[in-house]
Amino acid sequence: MIGISFFLGASFGRDEGKWAEYLGETKPRLAEAAGWVRENAAGDKSGFGWYNLPDQNTEELKKISAWLSGYDAIIHVGIGGSALGNLMLHQALLPMYLNERAEHPHFYLADNPDPEKAAAIWERVKGSRVALVGVSKSGATAETMSQFLWFRSKMKDSGVNPDENTLVITDPKGGVFRSFAGTVKCRSLEIPPSVGGRYSVLSNCGLISAAALGADTTKLLAGAASMRKFIETAGSDANPALTLAAIHRFHELNGRPMAVLMPYSNRMETFSEWFAQLWGESVGKDGKGTTPVRALGAIDQHSQVQLYTAGPDDKLYTLINIASRREEITLPQVDEESLVSLAYLSGQRLGEMLGYEAQSTAAALVKAGRPVVWIELDKLNEESLGALIFFYEYVTAVTGHLMGINPFDQPGVEQGKHYTYGLMGRGEYSGDAKEAGEYFGLIKKSEIKA
Amino acid sequence: MIGISFFLGASFGRDEGKWAEYLGETKPRLAEAAGWVRENAAGDKSGFGWYNLPDQNTEELKKISAWLSGYDAIIHVGIGGSALGNLMLHQALLPMYLNERAEHPHFYLADNPDPEKAAAIWERVKGSRVALVGVSKSGATAETMSQFLWFRSKMKDSGVNPDENTLVITDPKGGVFRSFAGTVKCRSLEIPPSVGGRYSVLSNCGLISAAALGADTTKLLAGAASMRKFIETAGSDANPALTLAAIHRFHELNGRPMAVLMPYSNRMETFSEWFAQLWGESVGKDGKGTTPVRALGAIDQHSQVQLYTAGPDDKLYTLINIASRREEITLPQVDEESLVSLAYLSGQRLGEMLGYEAQSTAAALVKAGRPVVWIELDKLNEESLGALIFFYEYVTAVTGHLMGINPFDQPGVEQGKHYTYGLMGRGEYSGDAKEAGEYFGLIKKSEIKA
Repeated sequence: MIGISFFLGASFGRDEGKWAEYLGETKPRLAEAAGWVRENAAGDKSGFGWYNLPDQNTEELKKISAWLSGYDAIIHVGIGGSALGNLMLHQALLPMYLNERAEHPHFYLADNPDPEKAAAIWERVKGSRVALVGVSKSGATAETMSQFLWFRSKMKDSGVNPDENTLVITDPKGGVFRSFAGTVKCRSLEIPPSVGGRYSVLSNCGLISAAALGADTTKLLAGAASMRKFIETAGSDANPALTLAAIHRFHELNGRPMAVLMPYSNRMETFSEWFAQLWGESVGKDGKGTTPVRALGAIDQHSQVQLYTAGPDDKLYTLINIASRREEITLPQVDEESLVSLAYLSGQRLGEMLGYEAQSTAAALVKAGRPVVWIELDKLNEESLGALIFFYEYVTAVTGHLMGINPFDQPGVEQGKHYTYGLMGRGEYSGDAKEAGEYFGLIKKSEIKA
Repeated sequence: MIGISFFLGASFGRDEGKWAEYLGETKPRLAEAAGWVRENAAGDKSGFGWYNLPDQNTEELKKISAWLSGYDAIIHVGIGGSALGNLMLHQALLPMYLNERAEHPHFYLADNPDPEKAAAIWERVKGSRVALVGVSKSGATAETMSQFLWFRSKMKDSGVNPDENTLVITDPKGGVFRSFAGTVKCRSLEIPPSVGGRYSVLSNCGLISAAALGADTTKLLAGAASMRKFIETAGSDANPALTLAAIHRFHELNGRPMAVLMPYSNRMETFSEWFAQLWGESVGKDGKGTTPVRALGAIDQHSQVQLYTAGPDDKLYTLINIASRREEITLPQVDEESLVSLAYLSGQRLGEMLGYEAQSTAAALVKAGRPVVWIELDKLNEESLGALIFFYEYVTAVTGHLMGINPFDQPGVEQGKHYTYGLMGRGEYSGDAKEAGEYFGLIKKSEIKA
């Protein structure tokens, strides 16, 4: 017990009665799900490795992140699970605008194979001491490897030995990246084979850059361990992670195909992106799955709340509030005559106002009969974030299990990959290129000239 | 005609037959909608002002943006429609990482009343020459005014005369901000009364910072004018903007409550956010409206495409591709033995690969029976972006009209505002504070301690 506490609350709108019934029916299944996670994790079964990450040995991570922290710039090449977690940890834990400060390396995420972004990154870093970090479990991800090879060639062209300045994070035994690392003798770290990309933020994949930039990864893992212990000891009746999984499944079954995550903190903006990847790729299968919708409070009150309160009743809303923020701002006395209608702002605290806005949005949603989940962290720090990450990984896995799908695979992404290989001219995929052309041709195009 | 061309294509999955029937039935309504926009815009009716923005006089904008461009830093305070458009234009039109360069002012958007963000902004800019830009039509927006007042007090505290370094953008006649500007004699620009916040990107609201940072706003407006002309002269039968509105409404009626927008360009990431605000607040009314879902290609292939192809058939997908990018990257020859399986990447062009990925995702979605809209810009520049902005404003307004709702109001956001006022202790809203507490209390909370 390390002092994380948070509230999880839920209202059910017009389905209050149905929920009690569903929960009653589902209890045995929840107990079974808890056992399913625990036993498979104990056997380190494929996909379940995230459950054991709080216990990992971080000696190598510490050594290599210390080395990395000495650079002027880090180019981190990865996509999806190999990218989002890093940004999420940076945003939540490091000072804002860290990237522009001198004390730590500047961090550049080359996640999209967009030549304009990649070229802009190189333009920024060239001439400084640059470390290249490549993250891919297999080393076969085209988006990642293409950029990795290009940045590598730019390093060579500028007279730097890339191998001395490269780190790859990959499978401990197999794959292109592993054999590459062995051949060129660059630094490497492992992604445990039982950990999938979207569950990898608490592995070397996600921790490396956060550690190099100054986040306390030991505390992050301690937070996750603490949540795991809470979940294991709560019993399936009083386990809010199991309850939340049941809530998600219940609303999916009751005609709500969307799950909105709306934290009230700029530091958690990327947390919603991370959640969206974890959730969408885990539960979107066999014609099932709710769609994650990213929102940010209070900004989206001026963007999405009109739709949320007055549009269709087709979403489950989760609001996350932070009780005590790292900084508070007290507003000045409003004494100008022309601003008299704003006098009510005098002496108010901005963070407190943000909390009132979160409560007001929750109340307005409840009034409109919409289902709301409320999560409140005392503080947003390494411990509570580690706990919340673990909590959501658990909720996602259990929700998938309740749906009867495998929350750890992603068969649906292969088709597009094969089409791309084919269009890029790989001989063995020429049939895919043809098929891609046929399906793409079904999109009837009309030209607009203006 | 200034040489913008783009393709708009659509496939209808399993609803191909139904669509032809719907379009036939809806044609008279589309013709009526086209007239509705044109006539109301001609009368400068409330809400329709966006249609006339291409004709605005930009003399004041140019003068004031030139003044603004001489500062070290701009703090832009606004939320929703007074904020997103600026970011969208910067990202699409300015060089990446502009913010860290010296030639132009650094731009800081204070859109969220999050004390951690506001404090971080001040920490970054203090000591440099700072301009404060406040954007609110009424001057009553609590999130904006609170931060405006705080930054103003910080400027005073640091010995600067804030009034000489402040610009407000607001209603030409009424509201707190207008009387404030008159009293303190700071610079001001107008938001035309007939232009709503979410349709304001091509007004002073959105153009000011883009102009100060170096975008060519004349070309942006020319692009919008060109699209308007195309729409006006196309006739309702061959007008793809009307067709796209019908497509959106058709899929809403056929059980698809989500509209995904997925551009394949980092420069358009914020365009999706802007669209989400425009769309959600315009069409989410009377229990109707589809939910905008923001995606980014190719990144979301590793996040959302599993769900898109294998989850429920409950979305309309719009992919936006750029035929010719500002930069292209040619990948190096892959000659290392350990990388032989990546030899297919040798000499490939990264932007071309990104285009193949867009096509592959579209083809995979079509194969899965999902409805796809394909938009392709020759280039992403001022003209094409201006055209695309106008196009989507038109599509949004017409879709709302087809739904039978008013696409220019936002009554659903008032409830939350009143609750917040009440919780902040404004006497006249004490009944709201009580009601907020009651509804919030319906969220049953259980404590987690870990």
